[in-house]
Amino acid sequence: MEKLSIVKIGGNIIEDESSLKAFLKLFSNLEGKKILVHGGGKRATHIASKLGIESKMINGRRITDADTLEVITMVYGGLVNKNVVAKLQAQNINAIGLTGADANSITSDKRPVKDIDFGYVGDVKKVAYQSIDKLIQAEFTPVFCAITHDGNGQLLNTNADTITSQVAVGMSELYETTIYYCFELNGVLEDINDKNSVIKHINTKLYSELLEKTIIADGMLPKLENCFDALKNGVKTINMGNTSMLTNENDNFTQITL
Amino acid sequence: MEKLSIVKIGGNIIEDESSLKAFLKLFSNLEGKKILVHGGGKRATHIASKLGIESKMINGRRITDADTLEVITMVYGGLVNKNVVAKLQAQNINAIGLTGADANSITSDKRPVKDIDFGYVGDVKKVAYQSIDKLIQAEFTPVFCAITHDGNGQLLNTNADTITSQVAVGMSELYETTIYYCFELNGVLEDINDKNSVIKHINTKLYSELLEKTIIADGMLPKLENCFDALKNGVKTINMGNTSMLTNENDNFTQITL
Repeated sequence: MEKLSIVKIGGNIIEDESSLKAFLKLFSNLEGKKILVHGGGKRATHIASKLGIESKMINGRRITDADTLEVITMVYGGLVNKNVVAKLQAQNINAIGLTGADANSITSDKRPVKDIDFGYVGDVKKVAYQSIDKLIQAEFTPVFCAITHDGNGQLLNTNADTITSQVAVGMSELYETTIYYCFELNGVLEDINDKNSVIKHINTKLYSELLEKTIIADGMLPKLENCFDALKNGVKTINMGNTSMLTNENDNFTQITL
Repeated sequence: MEKLSIVKIGGNIIEDESSLKAFLKLFSNLEGKKILVHGGGKRATHIASKLGIESKMINGRRITDADTLEVITMVYGGLVNKNVVAKLQAQNINAIGLTGADANSITSDKRPVKDIDFGYVGDVKKVAYQSIDKLIQAEFTPVFCAITHDGNGQLLNTNADTITSQVAVGMSELYETTIYYCFELNGVLEDINDKNSVIKHINTKLYSELLEKTIIADGMLPKLENCFDALKNGVKTINMGNTSMLTNENDNFTQITL
């Protein structure tokens, strides 16, 4: 099977012009077929505030009312996505920016209201991996923002980490997939206060041990759960660390496999 | 040669929920391969004003400073484009929303400063018709907003009518192309005060005669000039009128040929 890399970057890289530039150079140099997924939450919060729309977060998740969805569609789908695409074109990467509505690539269900009404938030239902592959086969590099659709004309806000793992799972039908989750830390840390205490390789067995010893920090737990879900569903390897893990020169990051 | 329709809609349709819905149904039913191009200027003006950015127009053209370009990227590339794409998906049209940066489809030059500095406005330099055709061959329906790029990472605001004619000219290398310019009038009118005085067919000869008799209204002149340019460069037919010209039931519109 041919290899495919799915790289996710968060708001911290998007926000900062020089970080973004440095990242896009690394991404451009990454060999083989690839997909980029980006967030953009901080920028959306900033624009929403300028428009007099209050950002409501519960457990780190954005409550997406109709006004907030408009802002997200403008900021993720327009401002961030199109600037990233233009900058990748300048690096000779033939990028094509997408929401899940484009090419009908990612369909989701509006999250049912239980204790909390998250509003226009979608939980991924189906990744049209063959549709996405048509773009890859045509030598385009898909750049996804964190928006999906319900197939009935409604856009939905969807977590970028989830989009990354679900797209990777979908593409695993056709490719040997590797996810790169780029974030501020060097990787999963054994000691949250020591940024150099990177655990270089986590497999199912070590993960159980770490859970027992309660070594893994709260914020990391759902991320790792999400990773093992993706691995069980066909993703080959998941790497977590800072953007320099995209080069061959840095091996100080966390590699996760079954 | 296979046929390809390029349909352009303006702000008046975009702004109005029920007009947009009716139009998208007509567009969905239009047979054969097709491309949609949309404006969105009024919406951009509205959001810009909410963000405290003044919209400066000279001769009906928007002066695009850095802040205005951000708004345009948000509104055209995000809000309008992605909602149109989601609504087309609901009509079973596999739409894919694009700026000229996506798939490197439309490259432009930043307009040189002469008497007026238009700011981040681009004049179309190259339409990558083969790149656009890859999407069409993959059975996607491209939906363009009025943004291009300079190839060096800079997005540029570009007139939607110009994008329509330039894309049509480009695609004429591969297809027999027809442009549909949808607007408020029933067509080019012989008497501007009589909405039923539609001139049903204009060719080069009649156009010269109309020009001599100064029958054509000022606002229509640059549009028609633009049309004959496109026809001379390979476009087969240009239709101007209201959206009902997309059906076979209405022949009350203006058809323009060489």
